Amino acid sequence: MIRVGQKVPNFEMEVYNPATNSFGKISLEDILKERRWLVLFFYPADFTFVCPTELADLAEHYEELKKMGVEVVSVSTDTKYVHLAWRNTEKLLEKVMFPMGADPTGKISRMFGVYDEETGLALRGTFIINPDGVLVGSEVNFYNVGRNAEELVRKMKANIYLMSHPDEACPAKWQEGQKT
Amino acid sequence: MIRVGQKVPNFEMEVYNPATNSFGKISLEDILKERRWLVLFFYPADFTFVCPTELADLAEHYEELKKMGVEVVSVSTDTKYVHLAWRNTEKLLEKVMFPMGADPTGKISRMFGVYDEETGLALRGTFIINPDGVLVGSEVNFYNVGRNAEELVRKMKANIYLMSHPDEACPAKWQEGQKT
Amino acid sequence: MIRVGQKVPNFEMEVYNPATNSFGKISLEDILKERRWLVLFFYPADFTFVCPTELADLAEHYEELKKMGVEVVSVSTDTKYVHLAWRNTEKLLEKVMFPMGADPTGKISRMFGVYDEETGLALRGTFIINPDGVLVGSEVNFYNVGRNAEELVRKMKANIYLMSHPDEACPAKWQEGQKT
Amino acid sequence: MIRVGQKVPNFEMEVYNPATNSFGKISLEDILKERRWLVLFFYPADFTFVCPTELADLAEHYEELKKMGVEVVSVSTDTKYVHLAWRNTEKLLEKVMFPMGADPTGKISRMFGVYDEETGLALRGTFIINPDGVLVGSEVNFYNVGRNAEELVRKMKANIYLMSHPDEACPAKWQEGQKT
Amino acid sequence: MIRVGQKVPNFEMEVYNPATNSFGKISLEDILKERRWLVLFFYPADFTFVCPTELADLAEHYEELKKMGVEVVSVSTDTKYVHLAWRNTEKLLEKVMFPMGADPTGKISRMFGVYDEETGLALRGTFIINPDGVLVGSEVNFYNVGRNAEELVRKMKANIYLMSHPDEACPAKWQEGQKT
Amino acid sequence: MIRVGQKVPNFEMEVYNPATNSFGKISLEDILKERRWLVLFFYPADFTFVCPTELADLAEHYEELKKMGVEVVSVSTDTKYVHLAWRNTEKLLEKVMFPMGADPTGKISRMFGVYDEETGLALRGTFIINPDGVLVGSEVNFYNVGRNAEELVRKMKANIYLMSHPDEACPAKWQEGQKT
Amino acid sequence: MIRVGQKVPNFEMEVYNPATNSFGKISLEDILKERRWLVLFFYPADFTFVCPTELADLAEHYEELKKMGVEVVSVSTDTKYVHLAWRNTEKLLEKVMFPMGADPTGKISRMFGVYDEETGLALRGTFIINPDGVLVGSEVNFYNVGRNAEELVRKMKANIYLMSHPDEACPAKWQEGQKT
Amino acid sequence: MIRVGQKVPNFEMEVYNPATNSFGKISLEDILKERRWLVLFFYPADFTFVCPTELADLAEHYEELKKMGVEVVSVSTDTKYVHLAWRNTEKLLEKVMFPMGADPTGKISRMFGVYDEETGLALRGTFIINPDGVLVGSEVNFYNVGRNAEELVRKMKANIYLMSHPDEACPAKWQEGQKT
Amino acid sequence: MIRVGQKVPNFEMEVYNPATNSFGKISLEDILKERRWLVLFFYPADFTFVCPTELADLAEHYEELKKMGVEVVSVSTDTKYVHLAWRNTEKLLEKVMFPMGADPTGKISRMFGVYDEETGLALRGTFIINPDGVLVGSEVNFYNVGRNAEELVRKMKANIYLMSHPDEACPAKWQEGQKT
Amino acid sequence: MIRVGQKVPNFEMEVYNPATNSFGKISLEDILKERRWLVLFFYPADFTFVCPTELADLAEHYEELKKMGVEVVSVSTDTKYVHLAWRNTEKLLEKVMFPMGADPTGKISRMFGVYDEETGLALRGTFIINPDGVLVGSEVNFYNVGRNAEELVRKMKANIYLMSHPDEACPAKWQEGQKT
Repeated sequence: MIRVGQKVPNFEMEVYNPATNSFGKISLEDILKERRWLVLFFYPADFTFVCPTELADLAEHYEELKKMGVEVVSVSTDTKYVHLAWRNTEKLLEKVMFPMGADPTGKISRMFGVYDEETGLALRGTFIINPDGVLVGSEVNFYNVGRNAEELVRKMKANIYLMSHPDEACPAKWQEGQKT
Repeated sequence: MIRVGQKVPNFEMEVYNPATNSFGKISLEDILKERRWLVLFFYPADFTFVCPTELADLAEHYEELKKMGVEVVSVSTDTKYVHLAWRNTEKLLEKVMFPMGADPTGKISRMFGVYDEETGLALRGTFIINPDGVLVGSEVNFYNVGRNAEELVRKMKANIYLMSHPDEACPAKWQEGQKT
Repeated sequence: MIRVGQKVPNFEMEVYNPATNSFGKISLEDILKERRWLVLFFYPADFTFVCPTELADLAEHYEELKKMGVEVVSVSTDTKYVHLAWRNTEKLLEKVMFPMGADPTGKISRMFGVYDEETGLALRGTFIINPDGVLVGSEVNFYNVGRNAEELVRKMKANIYLMSHPDEACPAKWQEGQKT
Repeated sequence: MIRVGQKVPNFEMEVYNPATNSFGKISLEDILKERRWLVLFFYPADFTFVCPTELADLAEHYEELKKMGVEVVSVSTDTKYVHLAWRNTEKLLEKVMFPMGADPTGKISRMFGVYDEETGLALRGTFIINPDGVLVGSEVNFYNVGRNAEELVRKMKANIYLMSHPDEACPAKWQEGQKT
Repeated sequence: MIRVGQKVPNFEMEVYNPATNSFGKISLEDILKERRWLVLFFYPADFTFVCPTELADLAEHYEELKKMGVEVVSVSTDTKYVHLAWRNTEKLLEKVMFPMGADPTGKISRMFGVYDEETGLALRGTFIINPDGVLVGSEVNFYNVGRNAEELVRKMKANIYLMSHPDEACPAKWQEGQKT
Repeated sequence: MIRVGQKVPNFEMEVYNPATNSFGKISLEDILKERRWLVLFFYPADFTFVCPTELADLAEHYEELKKMGVEVVSVSTDTKYVHLAWRNTEKLLEKVMFPMGADPTGKISRMFGVYDEETGLALRGTFIINPDGVLVGSEVNFYNVGRNAEELVRKMKANIYLMSHPDEACPAKWQEGQKT
Repeated sequence: MIRVGQKVPNFEMEVYNPATNSFGKISLEDILKERRWLVLFFYPADFTFVCPTELADLAEHYEELKKMGVEVVSVSTDTKYVHLAWRNTEKLLEKVMFPMGADPTGKISRMFGVYDEETGLALRGTFIINPDGVLVGSEVNFYNVGRNAEELVRKMKANIYLMSHPDEACPAKWQEGQKT
Repeated sequence: MIRVGQKVPNFEMEVYNPATNSFGKISLEDILKERRWLVLFFYPADFTFVCPTELADLAEHYEELKKMGVEVVSVSTDTKYVHLAWRNTEKLLEKVMFPMGADPTGKISRMFGVYDEETGLALRGTFIINPDGVLVGSEVNFYNVGRNAEELVRKMKANIYLMSHPDEACPAKWQEGQKT
Repeated sequence: MIRVGQKVPNFEMEVYNPATNSFGKISLEDILKERRWLVLFFYPADFTFVCPTELADLAEHYEELKKMGVEVVSVSTDTKYVHLAWRNTEKLLEKVMFPMGADPTGKISRMFGVYDEETGLALRGTFIINPDGVLVGSEVNFYNVGRNAEELVRKMKANIYLMSHPDEACPAKWQEGQKT
Repeated sequence: MIRVGQKVPNFEMEVYNPATNSFGKISLEDILKERRWLVLFFYPADFTFVCPTELADLAEHYEELKKMGVEVVSVSTDTKYVHLAWRNTEKLLEKVMFPMGADPTGKISRMFGVYDEETGLALRGTFIINPDGVLVGSEVNFYNVGRNAEELVRKMKANIYLMSHPDEACPAKWQEGQKT
């Protein structure tokens, strides 16, 4: 299990890509080559009830994050076939444009410590990987507490600011534009 | 290292208690006996620069959290003697009233996976333990990205709400009073 | 991995039950208590293309098998939520009335040797467990060759006949009513 | 023990060849060199009662299978001397023209998981190896349930069809000539 | 592997019994209970060419040995079904009345060190077990050298004589009636 | 412990040579270089009572065996000094002309499985090694049953015959000149 | 743990340097390169009560020791930030000019056997390393017994004298100028 | 090897007792029973040159230490016979009245980490054990630097003072009568 | 291997007893029960040339030793049969009356460290065991240096004297009657 | 522990040399280079009572042994300083001219099996090493039985005689000039 501050080993994942309505693959290596950040957004299961609100909330900020150089991938242990079916039948997800990753073996969920061996599902975990491949932030909520995409955006901005201003620090509640 | 969803083994820690200006001890067991929640708030080191803003921010919400049944303990690997000296010389900390925990052996920091073996300091990690002793939330930021105490309060409210409404779920960005 | 002729250890599985349109659990123990036979019918994934024809074919013979004292459970590594969604949107499945088992951890698929560690999916395997809990028949096809439910019925009849006529044998192509 | 989907290691076996009334050897390697399929047809013992009907049934389809590029070898743990004696005294076997393999050490039976350590005999198992040496189908019946050679022919046709139409799939009960 | 002078652990073996033309079992324990001697006479395989002359030669002395309190069992790794078939079709064996033991797992052949792991057949070994269950004589010939049943009878007589005259010794070439 | 059918590792042994009344050494290697057979004839101890009759009996056939290309060496765990003393004081041994091997460490007796760890003596074992160094025959009698040198000669003749007629077999009781 | 008479492996430590009021690093290697002696002066914790008197006492002799070619470094498991704060607020320390070493991981304290695993603090240990890197003197007092800097100076003089007069010895209570 | 702060396991040692000019034994257990302190004073070897000055210096303070409840035992790896001879021929030792311990096996020297495996001699180490059997002070000098008995007396006084005033501390250079 | 000063475990040995011209057994236990001493006198082999002079020399003192309460047993790795033959044919041994021990397995020779694994013979070793079963003296000569029985008698007398005068010592060359 | 007949590994030892009244070293290697024999003469301790008579007795024969090419070294676990003191104060030792070896670590005493782990002293053992470095004789007496230097001289003469007459043997009690 990778801890904050460690380098993340390369991984590859099948995805359903709503933007092109097609299947594909993403790999950490490819994202790092383009010097982008990666946010992995794990959730328990497709076709359940809390999850779509989190994904919909995240979908609202996807454009903004993309512009900041951040790729976002949602991940559950469902297959890509199921992602396609869910995305295209569940109304709440109609704005979702980020790739939906499939981790049926649980390999990637285990790598980030969010695989629940009992149920075969992933906990609600968010992980921020910087363009050097280092895990710089993690957040995990046990089951049904939803995440806040705005807070994620705030943290991404602080991280990106610090990357180009390494001798500074972003104090508590720092918002872009504040001086550090 | 404990993962979200697991029971936290009992631990004991020396603290400096600003409220009474005295030294003491806290133990998980004692807090659970009173059916309270515990938030552990790790940070790297006393007498440095980012850290006091995070602690000051947290201090602003301590009363509110206490009323919700939540104990908050800040933790670094400094000794209780150092906590006393810092609290009483650093202006920014004058509102800090929560116990300041001392973890000079790094035992508790290691338990939560935030001990940096290279430097002997703790990463910025926040951990939420429910009254059953289960770790229900974690957040870790690599070095200098400050945390947001308001978001912590939001998550605490959601957790507490779910504890008494186990069949519901708090969707993304849920705020107290919203229906789930 | 269990081999033909060995006793199958007890297992439990979450299911979506189309007959009652509800979620539930089945366990081997419960089925054996009623002295019934169990046929496990593994397939790779919901929301794909070959699989529904196999399930539909099987659905045609479910009534007959039930009358013979045989319970049938289809199994994939998808969740019960996905089974529900698929059963109720895929036309080909509208006659499916047998419980659809969810094995997202792959625990049961591994027990019968049909879990593909590479993809996290199950191979097309059919397994017959007699009322004493002994595995008496297995059939596994690599990926896309569909099974024949009629041949399954023929084998079930032969097995049931032999259970009550232990000193006889059912020759090749034996059909019910033939003398052994 | 080899599972469906795995490559079969090379093996060699002594055979009695009824076609030439002579002893010889067959090896997987030789069959794969000619790009042929191999069906191994295990049964418990010569000079017993169920077995000849299965072998006779299989003998009826040997010509057809051969034309499809499939070699068939029956296997028991008896010696080749015993095969010769049985083939030439048992009336039911007079049409048997496929090589009868001898596995007195049980080495090959163990490789396919059908060796019964208690009795030293092989279970009734059928195994299909494709021209790439991959095990693509298995079927095992506990003791006295006879197999159906027609079903074997059906599966062979589906397998062969899929080999040259890799992007298709043969649905349940598929028969040659049907569209997939 | 048991050596001369050691106690033989109990074993059980299926046999074809030509005297009653039926199948049965023999166990060392049963023979020792009746205070009889046991001669095990291993040979490679039924339906081959040297072997029947050895068995026929032995058959000539079976009556005499029985009267001396000696049971004789021939053993190969063939099944009891094959023994029956061979005994009843091979002319040379028509006088064979001793039980023909079946050791298809090779367990008993291994116990006496005559199992050839390469071929799955037994070497030509003769073993004499006294009424106390001790192995008192062994003789093994590599493949095709036939044994001499008369010499076996001579050795049995010497062994039996010494059993009741423990302080004497039977010199070389001793024949019954000679003084020791 | 070497089994029939295995290659015998080289060994060397001190001997008393009655033919030249001198001490010397023999090694398996030297005997095989001359393409001769070797018979090792173990017995428990010098200066005891059964043993000289066996050695005397063997002495009668030594000339004949030598002419057939067979070397014979008797072996006990006594020293060569004791062999000399015994040979020259015991009347029964006056015709003994074969080398008398000394195995005081028991190394060679252990190699052939006839060393009795309890007493430090060798059992009565006869071993035939062919000119390729392969053990082709063994015979072991527990303590006081004497061996028959004529039967040894018969077996040697059969072995030698088969060596030059590899495709034949010597049936039971075969005597030189008989057709196989 | 290093014992007197052994070579000390290289180590590096962060320090607060009161002389320049800045942070820096010292390493054993650098000190040995200049052929200087090193005294490590461990104490439990900053901001406590006994410790400053020891450090103040040592500060009185720092100049003298420096002239003798001796570097002195005080060490506790506090961070360099804490050293700076303490040195600049505690009156008793105002004459302290030697580097104050920070060992928050306890790595160096463990190397010299003074780390208390229970508390995470260092015992009061003084260690003398000669210019060859050999540990030539140790003194450890359990908790609250203060050390005597004059005695340290006496021992340093004796050590330095002996380094240049290797064939002599400094008797008990030896003071510089005394003949040995 | 025992470290400061640990309990010392019991040990026993042969001594030459100059006070009574006789041989005897001392054990830690006996000293602790009388609630006395024990100082062990190791030195390399009898009949050498530095050592007697240290022992003579210590002898001067023996009376004073005894009155304080402290037993002193000098220890080398020489035998008690050698201690007797040395004490009675070496003028410098004529005032020595403390027991001279013999540690020819090096067992006790090893226990305190002062045994030099190369030479079989003990380093110059002084160890203070309190009446509870805890090692509270250690001092080791590499070879030829003599110790200072007055400093030992000072440390003993401070230790004894702290034993009865556990909440105080003796600052640096503390002398009896000073306030802590 | 037993060393001087250790207790000798019990052992038993077959002997030829010249005094009664019969075979028997001796055990250490029996000798110790009668509070006698035991001298074991090992030599390489019977029927060789040095050995009889040592045994003859020892025979001259056997009466005297017996009267002192000492049993003497000579030991080689030859059998008791060989001892009988040698004693009764070798003139030099005609006065030998002590038991001649047989150690063909080398077990007892190994116990005393005189077994030569290369040759299977014992070195010339003399061992003195006191009535408490303690090995109190050993002497071993490499191969051909003969021992001196008179010196053995001298040492036995000194040992016996010291057994009853435990506080004395027998100086060098001590002879009975001398004062110690 | 080295046994008679084995090669002795090189060793080095500090000695007090009475002949030159100085300290030095001897090594086995140096003695073997000069093709000399070495006698090691172990005894328990200096300044005790039996030991000087043995050393005095040995001193009487030192000249004679030296002329025969034999070096003699006495050894105890005392230091060379103690040897000097003893030799020069004990009257009985005034004729001792052989080097007195110091083995305070017990390393050499252990090599020859005479180190008593309980007391740290050496047993009374004499060891003869020939010019090839082979241990050819050993003698060990438990504690207080003194050795006989004349017998040592006798054995040395026999050993030296045999070295140049390898085919002979020195019978019991052999004295120089006797024929073997």
